[in-house]
Amino acid sequence: MALIVQKYGGSSLESAERIRAVAERIVATKKAGNDVVVVCSAMGDTTDDLLDLASQVNPVPPAREMDMLLTAGERISNALVAMAIESFGAKAQSFTGSQAGVITTERHGNARIVDVTPGRVQEALDEGKICLVAGFQGVNRESKDVTTLGRGGSDTTAVALAAALGADVCEIYSDVDGVYTADPRIVPNAQKLKQLSFEEMLELAAVGSKILVLRSVEYARAFGVPMRVRSSYSNDPGTLIAGSMEDIPVEEAILTGVATDNSEAKITVLGIPDSPGAAATVFRAIADAEINIDMVLQNVSSLEDGKTDITFTCPRADGPRAMEILKALQVKEGWENVLYDDQVGKISLVGAGMKSHPGVTATFCEALRDKGINMELISTSEIRISVLTRESELPEAARALHDAFELGGEEEATVYAGTGR
Amino acid sequence: MALIVQKYGGSSLESAERIRAVAERIVATKKAGNDVVVVCSAMGDTTDDLLDLASQVNPVPPAREMDMLLTAGERISNALVAMAIESFGAKAQSFTGSQAGVITTERHGNARIVDVTPGRVQEALDEGKICLVAGFQGVNRESKDVTTLGRGGSDTTAVALAAALGADVCEIYSDVDGVYTADPRIVPNAQKLKQLSFEEMLELAAVGSKILVLRSVEYARAFGVPMRVRSSYSNDPGTLIAGSMEDIPVEEAILTGVATDNSEAKITVLGIPDSPGAAATVFRAIADAEINIDMVLQNVSSLEDGKTDITFTCPRADGPRAMEILKALQVKEGWENVLYDDQVGKISLVGAGMKSHPGVTATFCEALRDKGINMELISTSEIRISVLTRESELPEAARALHDAFELGGEEEATVYAGTGR
Repeated sequence: MALIVQKYGGSSLESAERIRAVAERIVATKKAGNDVVVVCSAMGDTTDDLLDLASQVNPVPPAREMDMLLTAGERISNALVAMAIESFGAKAQSFTGSQAGVITTERHGNARIVDVTPGRVQEALDEGKICLVAGFQGVNRESKDVTTLGRGGSDTTAVALAAALGADVCEIYSDVDGVYTADPRIVPNAQKLKQLSFEEMLELAAVGSKILVLRSVEYARAFGVPMRVRSSYSNDPGTLIAGSMEDIPVEEAILTGVATDNSEAKITVLGIPDSPGAAATVFRAIADAEINIDMVLQNVSSLEDGKTDITFTCPRADGPRAMEILKALQVKEGWENVLYDDQVGKISLVGAGMKSHPGVTATFCEALRDKGINMELISTSEIRISVLTRESELPEAARALHDAFELGGEEEATVYAGTGR
Repeated sequence: MALIVQKYGGSSLESAERIRAVAERIVATKKAGNDVVVVCSAMGDTTDDLLDLASQVNPVPPAREMDMLLTAGERISNALVAMAIESFGAKAQSFTGSQAGVITTERHGNARIVDVTPGRVQEALDEGKICLVAGFQGVNRESKDVTTLGRGGSDTTAVALAAALGADVCEIYSDVDGVYTADPRIVPNAQKLKQLSFEEMLELAAVGSKILVLRSVEYARAFGVPMRVRSSYSNDPGTLIAGSMEDIPVEEAILTGVATDNSEAKITVLGIPDSPGAAATVFRAIADAEINIDMVLQNVSSLEDGKTDITFTCPRADGPRAMEILKALQVKEGWENVLYDDQVGKISLVGAGMKSHPGVTATFCEALRDKGINMELISTSEIRISVLTRESELPEAARALHDAFELGGEEEATVYAGTGR
């Protein structure tokens, strides 16, 4: 008998009808002889609706109250799925994050799980019940207040529970039926991957794949919990994420896929005096504002005037704030100018095979060159190459790379309604 | 410095705008030098919407999950009001029923409060914070599960907290600005009462006044917590409910008001053999189905055949079920017939003055007789007379009694939008 943790996203729970469909699948998994723990996100647009209400009553809502507010969404979906399961003749019991023993750090709005003590969940499983656990939420140890885990928190709840309960697999259900070699809306012959390693999934998530959030994959890798990405609209087995890249025989190691990301902006600080610590001033100012930076380029200093330029990318949503901060420093620091560009896009190629197949970088650059696409920044890891291009060129760049590395299949990929959420 | 508990009903919280208006009032109360604890119901139609969703996923939803579901409503309103309060420059902290120490019996859906241990609330008050407590909910001692208190549960939460914290007054805010001598929609010159005793309010609540639920008034009376019924749409001081009827000097004791109730049905069992225990059979069957009965009449047995009739009223919603039960017993018990009538209405006169003013019953009957209204059943308490009439005659009966006992004022009463919710 296996123990399976299933996580259902908001789009899988957007109506009473969808909730009943999900419940039917859960009960079928149970009747096939498995123990089942289910983690639910909030229904459809609930979280957005609550955020909207909050902004109407207070444009800067206090974080503790925001957590109290938002966690109501998962309670609702959780209880409704439990009810639906009982209507299909199985026993169900729902748990809040706190009742399921999800202990977090103090930080409201973006807490991290520090421990999971699912004693009550294990008891209910032992009684033959299907357990429903509200995702995205926990309780902090000190003040016993309700916390939330930030974006994609329900995936993290599911993986953390799977690790604590020693589950055989953690299935992540959404309206996407697996991990593809590229976004099928951009690259029509993108193929669904049967399996990939944690490292490959981590790289894909880091460079713009929206299918799984980075944190949940990091957690799964750390605790060795196999994850499976599946659609709640089909019976396709989806994509398994398991094992280390190191375990893949060199001859089999291949390229995983292409990912695009148009959520970043590019900022360039021109004419920075080339003295020790000058670059640090830029990054300290951005870090103090809690803005993440991604790609970075520092030019070689000009021999003429001893000055240098720094270019970096950050989330587009934080771009205006970053510009305000840097513009305020410009005169004092003696910079020549600060430039902003939010028409950029990032295209990445990921794959364990990169290590063992020489010439990948060359092929990569040639494929873009042949389409007349200019590379503005490059960054690499052991199993990834990313370049910054114009945002408008992203789709063509994705197709060019997908073709150049022969990632495509024979048929067109199935695109589900709402794919990409 | 006084400690004031304020309870706001769903209609006072139906939009972001209303929530901000309520928050402004709360902050004004705090700035006037009071400590303030606020209990919120769920926003507007939230509870009905959740009930509707539940019935779509499972026509017979399990009670534990129903409680998990419904309590989300109060969490939402609670957190939003806390946010709004902070936007007006005061400090606020919200608490779930569990966090506020509201301990209840095990029974889901209709739990009773067994203890209130508001240590965390008191601490927050001592720090100068306004405390928000989610109404309608608690936690049961044994299984640590979330429970709900049934209809009007938020009023009960407010009174119970007021008692546990030693509050000076418990203000109940809704869209009604006080307790009236009659329903102003039926009796245009109904007057708002400045004050009445707990006993009078209990009688009014018991005979159909919707303003306060019986349980909350019983609780307030038991713990001596003065209640004030006020409107969240005006600054009118509303109606104070405090003190015992016994404390009202006989000369001052007057009649409180007239209440109408069209929520009951009348059932008559004809030709019951007049043997010991025959009547008990009827009432045991109804009691076993957990149906409450209100008025009862057993005819004097007929000398001819030694048979008797029993007439009683019960909630109209339970009428069909009661009929099913009795019809199933009819042949076995040898009853002649069971009749059903849901076109009845109950009109009641309440007032401490009834004890000391002889002739009230006579005036009551004459007032109805003069309008040609027939009395089908009569029941009385020390300070109340109720009679059953045709439902269609209720408004005329109310006006006739209101006039006969000179309860009216000079002017027409203000009727607020939505009065009577």
